[in-house]
Amino acid sequence: MKIGVFDSGVGGLTVLRAIRKRFSRVDIYYLGDTARVPYGTKSPETVIRYSLECAEFLSERSIDVLVVACNTASSYALDTLRATLSVPVIGVVEPGVTKALSCTRGIVGVIGTSATIKSNAYQSRLKAAGVEVYSKACPLFVPLVEEGLLEGEITQRVIEMYLKEFKDIGIDTLILGCTHYPLLKGAIQEFLGNVEVVDSSDAVAEELSCIVRDEGNAKTELFFTDMSQNLENLIEVILGNKLQPKILKEWAHRA
Amino acid sequence: MKIGVFDSGVGGLTVLRAIRKRFSRVDIYYLGDTARVPYGTKSPETVIRYSLECAEFLSERSIDVLVVACNTASSYALDTLRATLSVPVIGVVEPGVTKALSCTRGIVGVIGTSATIKSNAYQSRLKAAGVEVYSKACPLFVPLVEEGLLEGEITQRVIEMYLKEFKDIGIDTLILGCTHYPLLKGAIQEFLGNVEVVDSSDAVAEELSCIVRDEGNAKTELFFTDMSQNLENLIEVILGNKLQPKILKEWAHRA
Repeated sequence: MKIGVFDSGVGGLTVLRAIRKRFSRVDIYYLGDTARVPYGTKSPETVIRYSLECAEFLSERSIDVLVVACNTASSYALDTLRATLSVPVIGVVEPGVTKALSCTRGIVGVIGTSATIKSNAYQSRLKAAGVEVYSKACPLFVPLVEEGLLEGEITQRVIEMYLKEFKDIGIDTLILGCTHYPLLKGAIQEFLGNVEVVDSSDAVAEELSCIVRDEGNAKTELFFTDMSQNLENLIEVILGNKLQPKILKEWAHRA
Repeated sequence: MKIGVFDSGVGGLTVLRAIRKRFSRVDIYYLGDTARVPYGTKSPETVIRYSLECAEFLSERSIDVLVVACNTASSYALDTLRATLSVPVIGVVEPGVTKALSCTRGIVGVIGTSATIKSNAYQSRLKAAGVEVYSKACPLFVPLVEEGLLEGEITQRVIEMYLKEFKDIGIDTLILGCTHYPLLKGAIQEFLGNVEVVDSSDAVAEELSCIVRDEGNAKTELFFTDMSQNLENLIEVILGNKLQPKILKEWAHRA
C-alpha cells in the first residue's frame, strides 16, 4: 500500500509520524509545500489551487489513499480533491471532529490558524452534532514550534494568552486543529489540566485503519518544494531521525 | 516622480510610510507579495525569481526609482535587479549600513529574518568598514507584529530572549534588518536603553533624497498578490489610514 501525505510545510510530518507508528510496512510519500508555506494566510481559491497541484504530484506515485495533513487545505479543498481524485481522500478535520465527539461531555474548544478557524470547518461539524463550541486562532503557535520553543516561559505565556478563556469557560475537550500543535501538546495539556486534548494526527491514523492494510516496503520519501532554512533540523525534531528530504526545484518554478 | 516599492508582504509599508513622510507629492506604487510571503524562508534562487517578477510589475507603471523594501530580497536579489532594470534600485541594506556606520562607536548588532542574517549582507559590509559586528535571527518578531503584540509581557520576554546577549556584549548601535521591526522599535529601545536603534526605513527615505524630487500627484496605490487574513487591519496599523488595497488575483495565478 502507498499512502500520499501533503501539507503546506513541515507540520504535516506529525501526521506522517502518527501513520508510521500505526503502519510499519506501508510506503509513505510526503510532500511539503515549503515554497508556498503558510497556506493559513492565503485565500480559499489559492489554497484549493495549491492543494490540487500537491495531489497531482502524489498521484503520479500511484498512491492508494491521499491524506491532506494541512488543516487549511482540509478546510477549503477537500470537496474539490474528492471530486478530482479516484482514490480515497482523508483530511484532518473529520477525524479530529469524530474523535472529539467520542470524548466530550458537551463543550469543545478548537484552535488553529486564522484560515482554519475562519473556514468554520470544525465548528460547523461540531455544532451539527449538538455540542457547544468555542474557537480561537493562535497565529503564534506555529512560529513558536518552528523556533523550537516547545516549552518554557514564553510558550506558557502565549498558551495562557490564547487559551485562558477556554479554561474559564470550562471546555472539556480541545481539538488541536493545526499539524504543528501536537508538538505543543505537553505544554497545552499542562496549562489546561483535566481537559481531553485531541491530536488530529492520531485521529487520522485511526481513520486510515478502515482503508489501509499494513503491506509494502516500509519506504518513507520526503519531498519539499523549497529548501527552507530550518528544514533538516525540524525533520529530525519531529521524526526523530535524519531522513534526507528531496527538494523539487523544478516544481517551485512550475508553481 | 513615481516611486515603486515592493516587499514580500505588508512589512514594507513601514518603508512606504517613511518615504511618504519625507516626500508628500510623489506617486508611490507598492506591491506586497502576500501570495508568497515570507521570502525569509525561501532559497536564494526563489527570492531572486520572485523579486524580478515584482520589479517587472512595478516597471510597467513607469517608475523612476525602485525601492526593494524587503531585507531578504535586498540581501539576495539587488545585483540581479540592478543588472536588469534601467532605473536606480535602492535596497534597505545599504542605507541601513550607512546610517549605522554614521552612529556607531565601534560595536554594531544586526537583527533580521533567518535568511537575511544567513545572507551575511549586513555583516560583511559592516565588517569591511572595520566595526565589530554581532548578528541574530529573530523569527518570532514578525509573527508578534502581525498578531498586534507591539508591547506587553510576551513581547518583552521575546525581545529579552533574542537581545540579551547584545546587551551583555555592549553593542552601541542596533540595525533593525527587517521591515516589520520598526513597529517593535519602542519596545526594543526600552529594553536596550542607551543604544542607537537604526530603522532602515528612515535610512531608505534619506537615501532617496539624492534621487527624488518631491513632485507628482501624491498618489499612493497598494497592490497585493493575495488577500491575506489580517491585511486591511495591518495596513491601518502601519499607515494610519484605511487605504484600500488592490488584489492581483490573476497575478497569483501567474506565480
